[in-house]
Amino acid sequence: MKMNRLVSGNTVNRLPKYIRLLDELGRQGISRVSSSEIGRLLGITPSQVRQDLSNFGTYGSQGYGYGVQGLCNGLKSVMGLDHTHRVVIVGAGSIGKALLCHLQFENYHYCVAAAFDTDRNLIGTEIGGTTVYHPDELERIHREKPIDICVLAVPAEAAKMSASIVAKMGIPAIWNLTNVDLGLNQQNIIVEDMHFLDSLFCLTYYLKEQSTNLEMFA
Amino acid sequence: MKMNRLVSGNTVNRLPKYIRLLDELGRQGISRVSSSEIGRLLGITPSQVRQDLSNFGTYGSQGYGYGVQGLCNGLKSVMGLDHTHRVVIVGAGSIGKALLCHLQFENYHYCVAAAFDTDRNLIGTEIGGTTVYHPDELERIHREKPIDICVLAVPAEAAKMSASIVAKMGIPAIWNLTNVDLGLNQQNIIVEDMHFLDSLFCLTYYLKEQSTNLEMFA
Repeated sequence: MKMNRLVSGNTVNRLPKYIRLLDELGRQGISRVSSSEIGRLLGITPSQVRQDLSNFGTYGSQGYGYGVQGLCNGLKSVMGLDHTHRVVIVGAGSIGKALLCHLQFENYHYCVAAAFDTDRNLIGTEIGGTTVYHPDELERIHREKPIDICVLAVPAEAAKMSASIVAKMGIPAIWNLTNVDLGLNQQNIIVEDMHFLDSLFCLTYYLKEQSTNLEMFA
Repeated sequence: MKMNRLVSGNTVNRLPKYIRLLDELGRQGISRVSSSEIGRLLGITPSQVRQDLSNFGTYGSQGYGYGVQGLCNGLKSVMGLDHTHRVVIVGAGSIGKALLCHLQFENYHYCVAAAFDTDRNLIGTEIGGTTVYHPDELERIHREKPIDICVLAVPAEAAKMSASIVAKMGIPAIWNLTNVDLGLNQQNIIVEDMHFLDSLFCLTYYLKEQSTNLEMFA
């Protein structure tokens, strides 16, 4: 699939949902799917689906739809998920531990090289098969074999300082789970923030919307 | 602020980002802000900002912009964050524990009433100030004082069964952190899924996009 340089952020945000859906359809043995069916399952319009996918030169055939496996592989390639990415987890507290034990990074070609924590009781132990090191070791490990993505899961008060160190080492991307704005805008590093509360706020909005609707019909 | 019934999902998804930004500006003692400044800080266009906010009958004044505190309170009210919501956490493993210890629910009027786990070593203990009960107690606690939101943080294999029990009890909303599609579409319950991997996939996309750009200029 070719990569269009003018893909909007909203389309990029929807790509993982397409991939998860297509993976699931593939597991169910379904070999083709229409834009209407994709739209129905994801709660978006069929024309939005067609528009999103046409960004990558992918057009379903009239009456046939899209081939599930081909589309899934194509979108994974667009997202870079067909390459191995070397990942480290900085912060092995409850969130870091949850990721190490449950996220199944390896299913999507992420290779977790190491975890880091300042807690002496954790250093030298393994969590979910990954060894925990002191943060002082990060630079050496990155020099030996470059890290692609640093997952930042340190306590809020350590977030900015840790991010700044990681940026200086030349690690190209941070996945930020600290709920803190890292303030690295000026630097040559990609930061993706995952704010837990954003998702909870949206749920709360829909809850309010529903109760307002119920009142209208009462 | 009035609530427009035709607000798009994309606008809803951006509301938490506006609220977080306005909270931060308020902490910095900033009392007004323009749509250009909001757009710059959030990486969206000023016209998108104006369009989003006009959904709620809020228009900045030419040359003045928006009042930070008023806009922030208005958007919190639109999202329902000015009301107290009674929350329970089902599953007190590493993710549940991370939420209980770090999410600061109380800052946004969420009251965490109880946590639940089948692990006998956890039952009766407190995590982040919240008592852990056996899941059998959930119905009683909901009957005594209704729960608004169930945070589902159980292992993947227990996700669908737990969600189905929660839906039958009449709890109106599930915040789903299990990375499993709960399949509750037909039921009268609001589900918001938080898929950790979606955010990591987007980061990976931007990493690929950047390295492609660098190659072009090499």
